[in-house]
Amino acid sequence: MKTYEVEVRIWLKPSVFDPQGHAVEQALHTLGYSEASDLRIGKYMHLTVQGESEQQAKTRVEEMCERVLSNPVMETYAYTLKEVALS
Amino acid sequence: MKTYEVEVRIWLKPSVFDPQGHAVEQALHTLGYSEASDLRIGKYMHLTVQGESEQQAKTRVEEMCERVLSNPVMETYAYTLKEVALS
Repeated sequence: MKTYEVEVRIWLKPSVFDPQGHAVEQALHTLGYSEASDLRIGKYMHLTVQGESEQQAKTRVEEMCERVLSNPVMETYAYTLKEVALS
Repeated sequence: MKTYEVEVRIWLKPSVFDPQGHAVEQALHTLGYSEASDLRIGKYMHLTVQGESEQQAKTRVEEMCERVLSNPVMETYAYTLKEVALS
């Protein structure tokens, strides 16, 4: 069994309005950072996954993303997965 | 003036308990993904920044992260910044 470190990023699809991102962008402008624009906020997750192989671990992570971690109707996800050498 | 695409990841410091991450991990286990562990959830932001130079843009992004986007007491941030070629 191998150990993999996984990073998942989940964000709203471009067609979906992001009120939180809009509010934070307004705050940045109010505080003098008018050079910031198009701010969108999503979720960032970091987890460890055990797996027989990299492919098997990837399949399971994609299942987790589609069934639990993200809402496929409104959100898009991307992930990175790398094996962790156990000391 | 140049345009930069910025990705920011913000997550709780290791010493801070992450109730949301804990709850999602429990949900994964309940749904049969017992191979997942150490799940922690943070924020992921994507924005565009105008700047005179890469260094000036980086300085401003770091200010935004420390003053507005993250809570330095409880959170850690990391960011990537790359120039966008305007078509």
